[in-house]
Amino acid sequence: MERQRIYLKMKDAKEALEVFLNAFNPSPLLETEEIPVHDSLGRITGEPIFARISSPLYPAAAMDGIAVCAQDTYGATERNPKRLRVGQEAVWINTGQVMPEGKNAVIMAEKLHQVDEETIEILSAAYPWQNVRKVGEDFVATELLFPQNHQIRSLDLGTLIEGGIFRLKVRRRPRVRVIPTGSELVRFTSLSQFSDLKRGEIIESNSFVIASLIAEYGGEPIVQDIVQDKSEDIRAALLDAVNSEADLVLVIAGSSAGRRDFTAQVVEEIGELLVHGVTIMPGKPTILGRVKHKPVVGIPGYPVSAYIAFQEFVKPYLFRLQKSSIPKEHRIKVIAGRDMPSKLGIEEFIRVNIGGVGERLVAIPLPRGAGLLTSLSRAEGIIKTSSRSEGIAAGEEVEAALLIEPEEIADTVMIIGSHDIALDILSDELRKTGSPIRVASGNVGSLGGLMALRKGTAHVAGSHLLDTETGAYNVSYIQKYLQGMPVHVFHLVMREQGLIVQKHNPKGIRGLEDLTREDVVYINRQLGSGTRILLDYKLRELGMEAGQINGYENEEYTHMNVAVAVLSGMADAGLGILAAARALDLDFIPLVTEQYDLVIPSSYVDEPKIKILLETARSEDFKERIKALGGYHPESSGDLWKVIG
Amino acid sequence: MERQRIYLKMKDAKEALEVFLNAFNPSPLLETEEIPVHDSLGRITGEPIFARISSPLYPAAAMDGIAVCAQDTYGATERNPKRLRVGQEAVWINTGQVMPEGKNAVIMAEKLHQVDEETIEILSAAYPWQNVRKVGEDFVATELLFPQNHQIRSLDLGTLIEGGIFRLKVRRRPRVRVIPTGSELVRFTSLSQFSDLKRGEIIESNSFVIASLIAEYGGEPIVQDIVQDKSEDIRAALLDAVNSEADLVLVIAGSSAGRRDFTAQVVEEIGELLVHGVTIMPGKPTILGRVKHKPVVGIPGYPVSAYIAFQEFVKPYLFRLQKSSIPKEHRIKVIAGRDMPSKLGIEEFIRVNIGGVGERLVAIPLPRGAGLLTSLSRAEGIIKTSSRSEGIAAGEEVEAALLIEPEEIADTVMIIGSHDIALDILSDELRKTGSPIRVASGNVGSLGGLMALRKGTAHVAGSHLLDTETGAYNVSYIQKYLQGMPVHVFHLVMREQGLIVQKHNPKGIRGLEDLTREDVVYINRQLGSGTRILLDYKLRELGMEAGQINGYENEEYTHMNVAVAVLSGMADAGLGILAAARALDLDFIPLVTEQYDLVIPSSYVDEPKIKILLETARSEDFKERIKALGGYHPESSGDLWKVIG
Repeated sequence: MERQRIYLKMKDAKEALEVFLNAFNPSPLLETEEIPVHDSLGRITGEPIFARISSPLYPAAAMDGIAVCAQDTYGATERNPKRLRVGQEAVWINTGQVMPEGKNAVIMAEKLHQVDEETIEILSAAYPWQNVRKVGEDFVATELLFPQNHQIRSLDLGTLIEGGIFRLKVRRRPRVRVIPTGSELVRFTSLSQFSDLKRGEIIESNSFVIASLIAEYGGEPIVQDIVQDKSEDIRAALLDAVNSEADLVLVIAGSSAGRRDFTAQVVEEIGELLVHGVTIMPGKPTILGRVKHKPVVGIPGYPVSAYIAFQEFVKPYLFRLQKSSIPKEHRIKVIAGRDMPSKLGIEEFIRVNIGGVGERLVAIPLPRGAGLLTSLSRAEGIIKTSSRSEGIAAGEEVEAALLIEPEEIADTVMIIGSHDIALDILSDELRKTGSPIRVASGNVGSLGGLMALRKGTAHVAGSHLLDTETGAYNVSYIQKYLQGMPVHVFHLVMREQGLIVQKHNPKGIRGLEDLTREDVVYINRQLGSGTRILLDYKLRELGMEAGQINGYENEEYTHMNVAVAVLSGMADAGLGILAAARALDLDFIPLVTEQYDLVIPSSYVDEPKIKILLETARSEDFKERIKALGGYHPESSGDLWKVIG
Repeated sequence: MERQRIYLKMKDAKEALEVFLNAFNPSPLLETEEIPVHDSLGRITGEPIFARISSPLYPAAAMDGIAVCAQDTYGATERNPKRLRVGQEAVWINTGQVMPEGKNAVIMAEKLHQVDEETIEILSAAYPWQNVRKVGEDFVATELLFPQNHQIRSLDLGTLIEGGIFRLKVRRRPRVRVIPTGSELVRFTSLSQFSDLKRGEIIESNSFVIASLIAEYGGEPIVQDIVQDKSEDIRAALLDAVNSEADLVLVIAGSSAGRRDFTAQVVEEIGELLVHGVTIMPGKPTILGRVKHKPVVGIPGYPVSAYIAFQEFVKPYLFRLQKSSIPKEHRIKVIAGRDMPSKLGIEEFIRVNIGGVGERLVAIPLPRGAGLLTSLSRAEGIIKTSSRSEGIAAGEEVEAALLIEPEEIADTVMIIGSHDIALDILSDELRKTGSPIRVASGNVGSLGGLMALRKGTAHVAGSHLLDTETGAYNVSYIQKYLQGMPVHVFHLVMREQGLIVQKHNPKGIRGLEDLTREDVVYINRQLGSGTRILLDYKLRELGMEAGQINGYENEEYTHMNVAVAVLSGMADAGLGILAAARALDLDFIPLVTEQYDLVIPSSYVDEPKIKILLETARSEDFKERIKALGGYHPESSGDLWKVIG
């Protein structure tokens, strides 16, 4: 207990940010630096930019034709044409060219009659400044081109150059020192391959994400070497950083309330601990402090926590330093596709898949662990719960901040249900063609997929539910659970299910019969999964009892996680597909070939994105890749099998 | 006429793009290149990325505490605590650390009683894998992390690194050769300052904008030296480019239908001219061709045309090369604030200012010239007219593609009416504070500003309308034109109006009386402008007739443009403000001090953005800058003068 630090006076995110921002000069001004205009894309103007020259700078032809002095053309009519000498009263000119001295009008080429090389005949007079772009037509010297604090876009470069702005003052980038801490961490750049990693070592990845975000938000990241978990090492690194030219210092990890929580301790010793612990999840152990007048942020070590702490506290500070308002997130209204409970008093950042199903945008939560990076990289958005609620109920309308472009949502196909590697391959094949379609998949087992269709939270359910009475797949379940909802059922693959066992099968397992052996630990799949139904069916066939099987109550949610349980020695056997066993180099005892289908409500089958999905499933490229996995029979992939209802 | 090339068979934009894309391999595949993961931000995956290692790679502690073997803890209860030896049955461990061999559970620090350095007492047993993150909890080796053709974001870097992807295959960037042509062009990089520019020379800016756009869209621009307007030079440059490693070649300018239209001619000679002329404006002279199997685009020389031609034809090709779908534009519905006529048969790209006025988003067209770069850089959006219509009527709802982030629209203040340099300074001062507020201003004269308020297309009208009966400013006009609309009138500045004349006043002009002189040419302001009303009032006072003034019928729309007309010798005198004369180093004959106000509908005055605008107008910083311009009296800037209606 004495070894534990307690999060004293946890603050909510808003209050914590206020305390942090108020602890520093309310209007810190980054100096400006002068750079060439062609290096200025994305930079922020550090002064108002006034045109130094007008555009156009000289009167210029607005048409192709001849430049004349209007007075020389007076009197010309169709009946009384006037002749002009080329190079004297008439000078050939092209659009954009500067008018010759003494000329003040352009007669269009179409209106001329060229008598010979030296003579041109005109049929009407020109008026002064006809077809001439006047000086300053676009802008005049001294005119404001851009105010300060304007972020320069590609199209602005032209305006700047035409205005004679060849160099300009922009705000220098904020410098951010990043100090990763953790004795067990190794930089992957020091490994020639991942197999060089020793047990106990962990690959450091947070500093790369953080450095990339710093650069994305206009800053200059300076990432230091990994610092050991020693109070004195962290103190030395932090002192060095605050004494450097850095505008902001980030210390990654070592910020949990665990016994190695040296960052908070060091900040308190050599500076001021402003905030220790914020009522957000992930991101709770965030530290905000001040050391020698420099802001210091302790970023939690779990990667999702690190990302959220960065977005909530570092990003606002970076933008304020640059005198630029924080770009607002793209937000959209979505319907919660499932209950998303959360703790009262905590703002939770729930990563969700979002797809337009029918008329509605539906959000399905991804797993919540702060260590699950894919819950971010596979998410379309983040829903923030209110600290005053206990979460969000299925069907509730809430706002989600998008992690992709708003326009991509319409192209997202939500596939919920049983997971199969064939879905990953399908997703990749879709992208191969350059199609904008994204697959968002949720692994909740076959029955969960059918329920998702019924609730209108998915386009497609992946299902392999065996009817133990008839031996047929899916039909009876669809009839029972999707009554009144017409669906099309398409084959995706036939695949082999069997027992995944240790390499070389050290326990000599031969089949399901051996699962009752004292020395065999089984790893099961969750209720409602097709694989669980298959197991229970087979046990009944064999007259075996679930209670006889050691580990029957331990559940995993995917084939791959069953394989991992076997690989790690947590279990000796689990029912799953050959591909999962192969992927982890485990042995496999085949039991049955089963049918894995895509169930799609009939009302969606004509949607272009669904059509493309099925076309891809029928393509030779897809089938070949599936075959190469082993244990798969993709002959009828994408074929319509049954229309039900 | 023989010198003219005609746009044969002009195509519309859609057809032109189809012809162009279909002329090349429908699925050109850029090779991939292998790069380190930390250089991969923004790159596009060239292969599906499967995890090479699981995450976590080893079972790891999910809590701070002690790692134990569950079996060693069995039997522990509150009444029967069990003692474990530190370093033997119990090993101190922190969240995220790899579990020691032989341990399979973590007991949280809070639940321990530490007897001494070597002994820990526990009050309950642990079950296997309690508080342990299992191998593959996030993802399992061989699992798909990202499909191919996925653009890598900052947050994806963590997933890649944790998945053991230290190097990965991404599509190489498309290489684009850019050939600027034009004998009159000079690179600004060869000038030490703009005054080195000789008459007739024009600064080349298109290639910088185009190169920046190429890079923004994932390509690698290679900009060549400027090529002279000679058929043989262009041929040589083009041949060199198509024989290089370039995937795409752009020839800028020389693509109008003028007599120097060498690009089309050369493409036809050494390749195939697919499209010459597109029914879009700006951008009509675009050329699409094929030379030695390479795509060649002739980009028009006018900068707005160049931008539009790039967006319409080069951008789609670049994205197709990268097997990536074109990011959709942000589009919003807006109400046309004015008529925007356009030619039947032409799709016009009208650049517009957009602001949320009341409940509506209103779009006001900017000037249309293809040479007006600021019509792009000052626009919030672009409205595309249909080629089957003759334009858009005021009040019509249309779609605009945004050039800024959708969220910025709400922060845009529309100031329409008379232009004054004080508005530029106000706009800059607003940005100085880091405020997100953008000022979009339209120069239509004072009366035009009041009309805009009435139509609900502006937040603020800048006005200096003299009531020639009472000598008061603005009030009677507001009563007449804004009947029934309560408004607040705030002072912006008092300013000196007078005659802007040539430097050293060579014609010896002393006042308005001299405007009737034979040798004096006047440049007027447009009807409805406060300055025009002032002139007419003064003429009546002096008993002068408009007809006596040489040039009375020539109108300009801003003070600065009047000053430019004088500077360029088009006129000898014009009525305007001292600041305009000073900016161009001209002489000035003061006539009156007039009042320039901001007229704001009362319903808007409490909007935060309007409040900030007025606060800024009252700030000392603003007033000092205004004073420094000369001819301004900003003492009561931002003060409420009158509430009317």
